[in-house]
Amino acid sequence: MELFEAIRTRRSYRGMYLPTPVPREDLQKIMEAALAAPSGCNKQTTSLIAVDDPELVKQLGGMLAPHFASAPAALCILTEKKIAYRDRTFYIHDYSAAIENALLAIQALGYESCWVEGYVTDENRIGYRMAELLGVPENLELVCYLPIGKPAEEGSRVRKLPFEERAWFNGYRK
Amino acid sequence: MELFEAIRTRRSYRGMYLPTPVPREDLQKIMEAALAAPSGCNKQTTSLIAVDDPELVKQLGGMLAPHFASAPAALCILTEKKIAYRDRTFYIHDYSAAIENALLAIQALGYESCWVEGYVTDENRIGYRMAELLGVPENLELVCYLPIGKPAEEGSRVRKLPFEERAWFNGYRK
Repeated sequence: MELFEAIRTRRSYRGMYLPTPVPREDLQKIMEAALAAPSGCNKQTTSLIAVDDPELVKQLGGMLAPHFASAPAALCILTEKKIAYRDRTFYIHDYSAAIENALLAIQALGYESCWVEGYVTDENRIGYRMAELLGVPENLELVCYLPIGKPAEEGSRVRKLPFEERAWFNGYRK
Repeated sequence: MELFEAIRTRRSYRGMYLPTPVPREDLQKIMEAALAAPSGCNKQTTSLIAVDDPELVKQLGGMLAPHFASAPAALCILTEKKIAYRDRTFYIHDYSAAIENALLAIQALGYESCWVEGYVTDENRIGYRMAELLGVPENLELVCYLPIGKPAEEGSRVRKLPFEERAWFNGYRK
């Protein structure tokens, strides 16, 4: 799929998924896309676990919501809070760029997804329980869950502010 | 350009730029791509100022380094540190996803760029001085500068860890 089409058509899908499996080859492409994102001082703080084991993905998605649990596959985003230089760390930047690449790849391959992070990292610590289940060591934090699959519903699209409310040339509001 | 090609070929370019101007139409496409990125709870915390005024872009880039100052255009990323829900804020996630979209768009249109953030937000407060010059109000912070232009040098590419060091299936290091 052409880049600008992928960017334009990507959306956050919050409906049920069809049970159609996601081939490993597609998961691999999605992961490669995520890992190709830049990282602050090239620290490569982001790592990934794709889940396509039917029981495991049901168990993980079920910690969130029934519609997420219906997805036949998912991508778990892990981060290591490394210092890039002095006291600066860019791990949120790093994994956010990686997630955006993954979401575009998911879109281009004909699947739907949703950036699920708030629920995962809130004080109920769902991400921590997911990480335990996946054998993730303590130096890594599971910060985001991306369900992956074909949509069973139409879904919707959020409204965004018009261009001129958010973008200008050569000066603020110019 | 096809999505996966844009993702694979994007890199951080730190060489000099050719003076060839970047048409407004291309800057508009880059900005639209950035604004199409998702944001936590759709708060749309990111806004943008593209710079193509020759004097202004030289002045802004000159605050950073001669090679950045040689770029005929640039995109300044602004953020508003809004609360998304409860005490959670996702402004870094929001602008990082927007930047990644912008970088892919820049790549697809045949230009080079580099995610310049550390220099901009370090204690010398270059971003603050840039924001003043652009008339940006105090509720917004200028956090990133993306030079945009055709490369005058070959440039290089960072090395990344192999896939199997960063990505697994159904469990950590599986």
